[in-house]
Amino acid sequence: MAFSPLVDELVESLRCLPGVGQKTAQRMAFHLLERGRAGGERLSGALAAAMTGVQRCESCQNFSDTPVCPLCTDDTRRTGSLCVVESPSDLLAIEQAGDYRGAYFVLMGHLSPLDGIGPAEIGMDRLLRRVRQEQISELILATNPTVEGEATAHYIADCLQDQPVLVTRLAHGIPVGGELGYVDGFTLSHAFRGRKPLTD
Amino acid sequence: MAFSPLVDELVESLRCLPGVGQKTAQRMAFHLLERGRAGGERLSGALAAAMTGVQRCESCQNFSDTPVCPLCTDDTRRTGSLCVVESPSDLLAIEQAGDYRGAYFVLMGHLSPLDGIGPAEIGMDRLLRRVRQEQISELILATNPTVEGEATAHYIADCLQDQPVLVTRLAHGIPVGGELGYVDGFTLSHAFRGRKPLTD
Repeated sequence: MAFSPLVDELVESLRCLPGVGQKTAQRMAFHLLERGRAGGERLSGALAAAMTGVQRCESCQNFSDTPVCPLCTDDTRRTGSLCVVESPSDLLAIEQAGDYRGAYFVLMGHLSPLDGIGPAEIGMDRLLRRVRQEQISELILATNPTVEGEATAHYIADCLQDQPVLVTRLAHGIPVGGELGYVDGFTLSHAFRGRKPLTD
Repeated sequence: MAFSPLVDELVESLRCLPGVGQKTAQRMAFHLLERGRAGGERLSGALAAAMTGVQRCESCQNFSDTPVCPLCTDDTRRTGSLCVVESPSDLLAIEQAGDYRGAYFVLMGHLSPLDGIGPAEIGMDRLLRRVRQEQISELILATNPTVEGEATAHYIADCLQDQPVLVTRLAHGIPVGGELGYVDGFTLSHAFRGRKPLTD
């Protein structure tokens, strides 16, 4: 590299971001230096604050500034249902849909034995303890509709067989606003099997 | 947004990076929080240091930690030739090719009247002063082979008409290792017009 030490270090550091290689890191560094110094300083402060201040919520495992996150301390969320998602962005998507008003549990991943991610890594102990202690009546398994997500959902359901809790899974079907011609066969057969009377 | 304030602020701040929207910023923030806290802290420090410490070299306009950059203080570079490039990454590409051992001048852009970038913004005064004061014998215009780059090169050449300096432009032709079938017509006609005897 032939840049100055400070620029070199900035370019190298930017490569810790996912999907950012040498050329993109260079482009980002030059953009910040040329036109975005205020943004760069703000990002520096936000990174320092978040890297030291953000922890896992003791109750739902989501990222939180406090030991227990606001969603878990919110008493109106104690509706007896618990929604299990893989990641904070899945939680956000459900919150933005606005339909569900219960509590969450964030697995922060899915079971993946080859990557060394087993039940302990996704917090199964904590989840089972919550189901037992908080009188959860319905556990909604909202893991992704992928092979790993389905396997994780089935594993969780198996662990709860002897508990008095209704375990549900999000419905599969054609997405609203989609075109039938572009929907894959698996989804279409799910949609056919799950068809409902129009008066429903 | 339903994340914690620190995570929200991190996601918002990441959007100052070029080409990073809401979803990418979220992905980056979660990646750093889950798996890259050390990298995040390093990036925070590098950003703070670069945003306050990096300035423009007084001689060549490139980014530098010092008022005059190491390339400009290097006496072995005073060969009488000055290479004009649009950006620091162009300079890096030429340095990595390893052929050119003279001095540089970085325009930090190209003439673009519609964007309000005129001769003053690309440092024409400084460039003309250097040509006059440093006994430059050859000025190599290595601006990009685009419409804007060509226009900028022609403008600089016009400004230097009454100076005793040889103004050159990088050769156009087929790239080494390329396939003729994929080379565009303009480049091919340049290559034909610039053909040389094999003994050269």
